[in-house]
Formats: sequence, C-alpha cells, structure tokens
Amino acid sequence: MSIAVIYGGNRSNGNVETLTKLATQGLMIEEIYLKDCVIQPIIDKRHAAEGFTDVSDDYNAIIDRILPHDILIFSTPIYWYSMTGAMKNFIDRWSQTLRDPNYPDFKALMSSKKAYVIAVGGDEPYIKGLPMIQQFQHIFDFVGITFEGYILGEGNKPGEILQDLKALSAADHLRKDLQ
Amino acid sequence: MSIAVIYGGNRSNGNVETLTKLATQGLMIEEIYLKDCVIQPIIDKRHAAEGFTDVSDDYNAIIDRILPHDILIFSTPIYWYSMTGAMKNFIDRWSQTLRDPNYPDFKALMSSKKAYVIAVGGDEPYIKGLPMIQQFQHIFDFVGITFEGYILGEGNKPGEILQDLKALSAADHLRKDLQ
Amino acid sequence: MSIAVIYGGNRSNGNVETLTKLATQGLMIEEIYLKDCVIQPIIDKRHAAEGFTDVSDDYNAIIDRILPHDILIFSTPIYWYSMTGAMKNFIDRWSQTLRDPNYPDFKALMSSKKAYVIAVGGDEPYIKGLPMIQQFQHIFDFVGITFEGYILGEGNKPGEILQDLKALSAADHLRKDLQ
Amino acid sequence: MSIAVIYGGNRSNGNVETLTKLATQGLMIEEIYLKDCVIQPIIDKRHAAEGFTDVSDDYNAIIDRILPHDILIFSTPIYWYSMTGAMKNFIDRWSQTLRDPNYPDFKALMSSKKAYVIAVGGDEPYIKGLPMIQQFQHIFDFVGITFEGYILGEGNKPGEILQDLKALSAADHLRKDLQ
Repeated sequence: MSIAVIYGGNRSNGNVETLTKLATQGLMIEEIYLKDCVIQPIIDKRHAAEGFTDVSDDYNAIIDRILPHDILIFSTPIYWYSMTGAMKNFIDRWSQTLRDPNYPDFKALMSSKKAYVIAVGGDEPYIKGLPMIQQFQHIFDFVGITFEGYILGEGNKPGEILQDLKALSAADHLRKDLQ
Repeated sequence: MSIAVIYGGNRSNGNVETLTKLATQGLMIEEIYLKDCVIQPIIDKRHAAEGFTDVSDDYNAIIDRILPHDILIFSTPIYWYSMTGAMKNFIDRWSQTLRDPNYPDFKALMSSKKAYVIAVGGDEPYIKGLPMIQQFQHIFDFVGITFEGYILGEGNKPGEILQDLKALSAADHLRKDLQ
Repeated sequence: MSIAVIYGGNRSNGNVETLTKLATQGLMIEEIYLKDCVIQPIIDKRHAAEGFTDVSDDYNAIIDRILPHDILIFSTPIYWYSMTGAMKNFIDRWSQTLRDPNYPDFKALMSSKKAYVIAVGGDEPYIKGLPMIQQFQHIFDFVGITFEGYILGEGNKPGEILQDLKALSAADHLRKDLQ
Repeated sequence: MSIAVIYGGNRSNGNVETLTKLATQGLMIEEIYLKDCVIQPIIDKRHAAEGFTDVSDDYNAIIDRILPHDILIFSTPIYWYSMTGAMKNFIDRWSQTLRDPNYPDFKALMSSKKAYVIAVGGDEPYIKGLPMIQQFQHIFDFVGITFEGYILGEGNKPGEILQDLKALSAADHLRKDLQ
C-alpha cells in the first residue's frame, strides 16, 4: 500500500504535522504541503458552454502526485471548525477535474482509494470538529473513497499535541494499520 | 438596521445569489463579492514572536466594509458540503484580525452583529448541508455573533433555485424580518 | 397517496401536534398517538439462539396500521434534543420486526415509503435539532425509506408554535406537497 | 472522585458493557442497569397548572443513586444511531426532576459533575454515532455537566468489541484518567 499525505496547514512543524508524522513514522510516504503550492479558488464553469478553463497553478501537479497512491491522509489544522481554506480550495477544484478530459479516470481512480483524516484544533476539537468529519464523509462518498478513520487531537500552542495522549495513542494505532 | 452581504460564490447570478437577492429585495445592502477580491490564505503566526505579517490583498478592505453594519448575510453556494474555499479563506483570516492592533475592537464589534446564512447546493442540501450550518454556529459563537437564521436551498443548474418553493418562501420570510 | 402520522408527544394539542395538523389539514390521515399505546423497550435478542420473544403490547398493532400507507410523518416534540423516548422505543423495536417471521416483508414495505419529520422544540431547534434530523436520515437509510423533508419549529409554552411564521409557512408548503 | 455508570443496554454482557468494564476495571463504581428498572416515559406537565404528577416507578431511586457521584458514565449500545429508548426515557424525565420540589438542587448538583459517554454500535459508529455525541453535548450543556470525553466502539455480535483495538485502547486511557 502506498500513501500520500496532504498537509493543509501553513505552519511548519505544526501540531497536526507532528501528529501525522507520528502516524506515518517509518513508512514511505509522498508528502504534499499545500502551503508551498498555489491553488486558485475554483471558477465554477460546470454550466458554462465553453466548460472549465485551464488554470496555471500547482493544482494539477498535486493531483498527479496523489493519484498513484492507495491511501490518502488529509492532515489539517482545524481553522474555524473546519479544514483550512487552502485545503478547501484544493477539494473545491475536484469539481473541475471531474470534468477534465485530461483526467477521464479521476473518479474511478479516487473511488479505489482509502482515506484518513487527521485534524488538530484548540477549541474542543472532539466535539466541535465533528461537523468537519461528517463533511469529509460526504466528500469521500461523492467520489467513492472509503473513509477508513480519523484522528482528532487537541492542541493550540506549538507542541501541545504531545500532551494529548489519546491522540498520540490513536496515531500509534493508525501507524500499525498503515504498515 | 444596516446589512452587508458577503457572497462566496464565483458564478455571476448563481442560484444562491438569486435567492439572496430575493431575500434582500428593496433593502439597502452593502454587497461584497469575494470572487472579485484577492484573499490570501492565512499564514498562521498566532504563536510567532514577531506576530502576524501585514498582507497586501483585499481582505482588510472587506473587513472595513462589513464592520459598520448590524447584520451580516453569508451567502454561499455549497461546494463539497461546505462554504466555498474563498469564503473559508476569508473567515480563516479573522484569526489575524483578532490580533491586529489596527482592529482592537474587532471582536467587540462582531459580537454586536446578527448573522444569517443562505446556502444553495445540488446534493441534498437539506441534509448534507447541516454540518456546515453547525460550523457557522460555532464560528459565530466564537466571536459572539448572534446566528439569527439560515436558508438552505436546492439547485444545481443555473436558475434551478426558482423551483425550490420552500426556499423561495423562506427568502420571503427573511425579507420581512430584515425590513 | 395515503398517509400515517405517528405522534411521539404525550401532551394533547401540543405544539408539534398543532403544526402537524396544519400540515395535514383536509387530508385523510391515519393518526397514531404513541402516548395512548404501551410500547416496551426492545429486549435485544438478535444474537440469542432462541430469537426474539413475542411481546404483548401495542407495538405490532401500530406496525399493522402504518404498513399500508405510502407516507409516514414522524411528529415529535424535541425532548432533550431528540425524539421522545416513546418514539425512540417504537423505532428501537423495528430491530425485532426486521427478524419477525410474521413480517417477512417489513423492510421491503418500509423501503417503498416516503417519510417526513415534524419536530418542535424550545431551545434553538433550528440548530440543536439538527443532529436528530441527521439520525432520522440514518434510520430511514437503513430501511430504505426516502426522507422527503422535515420541518423544525420553535415553541415551548402551549400555542407558541403559532408565532413561528416560518414553521407555519413550511407546514403550508408540506400540505400542498401531500395533496 | 466517585463514579456512577448508567447502562442503557438490555443485553447482559453486551459489547458496550464489556468496554465499560474495561474502562472502569479496578475502580469503585456504582452501577445502574436501566434494563432492570421500570422508567415510565415522561408525561409532560411543564405547563399544566397542577404541575407534574408523582410517578411510582424506579426513576427517582436512580436519581438518588447518581446524585452523590462526581462522575457519570453513560454507557449505551447504539440503537438506530442513538442511545437506547430506555436511556432516552431516563433523560427525558430530568425535565420533571428539574421542577420537582423534592429535588430543589438537581440542576446545581448535576452542574458540578463530569460525564463520559461510552457507546458501541454495529453500523459505522465512528461516523453515524456522531449526531448522538452532539446531542449528549447539548444535554450536558443544558444542565451544566462537563462533557469530559467519549468512546465510540464498533461491534455487533457478542464479544466483537474485543476486536476494536482503538476502542480498547481508548478504554485503557479512560481508566487511567478515572483513577
């Protein structure tokens, strides 16, 4: 099984990155940091006669990097009770790829994948992060990805995630599942 | 009562814009179209010694436009079961404004406001849009905004919202409340 | 189309009953008041060798009354952010009927039905009632019922629902849909 | 810290009971099995001139047993994506106790407590059990209980919970927290 991690945060070595590294320690993973990429918000042309316009940013390159993998890990700090805007823009663009003649197998390829979500927040993530988990379920359902599991962790200041023993333990379990 | 509408969609005359116009017909409103603005994703420096860096994009100008109003209407198409990435990036940046010495009263001003959400989606928005509504509640709670109500509408192709009689009726009720 | 209403409340002429009557005014409906029935909590014998034991209460008679109808309306006051315990006990017993040789077609019959939920609560039902709506979606999905729509209304003291104009309007729309 | 566990299931040695025993192993706990108690559905007389009528069932005795404790653990199988009807009837009756002159301090006493939820279900409990968790949050908020945490486990047939290593590990963490 081959694994790609999509990091949605913009802080280097942030809490969710730390937690994700623990969950993937010792495994070969393809790591994508959205903070180092330019991803334009989608221009919705689903109903335009001319169809979508090609966008020259880093989005397609990211798609090319994730498509070969069996497992996708969405790793995001919880900003305002959801994934980061950067990660949301990335997912919004899937609507374009679903209609992109250059990616005729996008949905079929996505539907063969399994996904995990790892998210860390500072304001009661175990409760207030649940709508985001439900949204990921809907997102994954739409393209046919199997939602294998998620880890919610609590942390605000740098390094605080290391005090969330439950999250660390869950990361440990995930690492065993991924092996 | 003075009203600002924040449009999160990028399609002109999209379904949610249509529904929002019906809900605000005849009222003086300040209209902000995020699609015409550049809003950078937040660079999280909450924990950096130097603090946040000024960003030269359109974000602060939008904040300046919404702060004088009593009522905020967040009008967004439902992309992938949540607000658009553009709107999410806009809200993510509030974390910066909350610490911005140029906006010492940001939270106090926001906490005196009332908000509505109007959202239109194509895939069972009455059910699959609910996590987004819960997130808006958490967002508004955090800054003290009173969540006065929301309208979920169903529509995919341009103009389809006009067939969602329940949503049109709810827009009519909202218009009366706003007068 | 023939309609059965299942009332979960125990107060005569309660707010949700009032709202439901408005939504069904002038229609032939079969009305079931759970408050007038004895429904034992389920004794879970799904995994017992001997299977479920017949229970002599009013449950099967209710099932017999709802099965012939095309549309089920679940009408419940929101107690503690969910359906009443009486309605929950009624639904819990479906697990028994799903294995009851006297009802070999239970799931098939249920899966041909459409359902609506009408619920009234006193503590921010438009937000805090949403998890209950999500649960009804899961419940209906399990047996294959189509979840056609729901109305949430606000009311605490007797008669207060008549001040929730949005709910009244939604009831009016529902009545037209049911005709 | 003294602990009471309220079991909502009706099957002896069911999966959630097993998980709860692991989480409380070696601790002094007061155990309440709702299956062995008679709890009438609430008759809502909040708005009746005469007020609530005394009910002669086991409910008050359970309240008397839980009130002295600092920590309440709500342990329930997930029936139809929520707590059992028996547990719901128990909680519904709190509305009566909140107005019962024999329990003038009910809310004050409850608000000093911490609570945990342990729940096991067979149909994607990690996702489909989340609305129930949100409801418990609302329930606890209403009476001022602090929601300390929850464990969701997966299991259907007797004993299956022992294969959910994540849940077992979470139970182990909870046991350490409770010591």
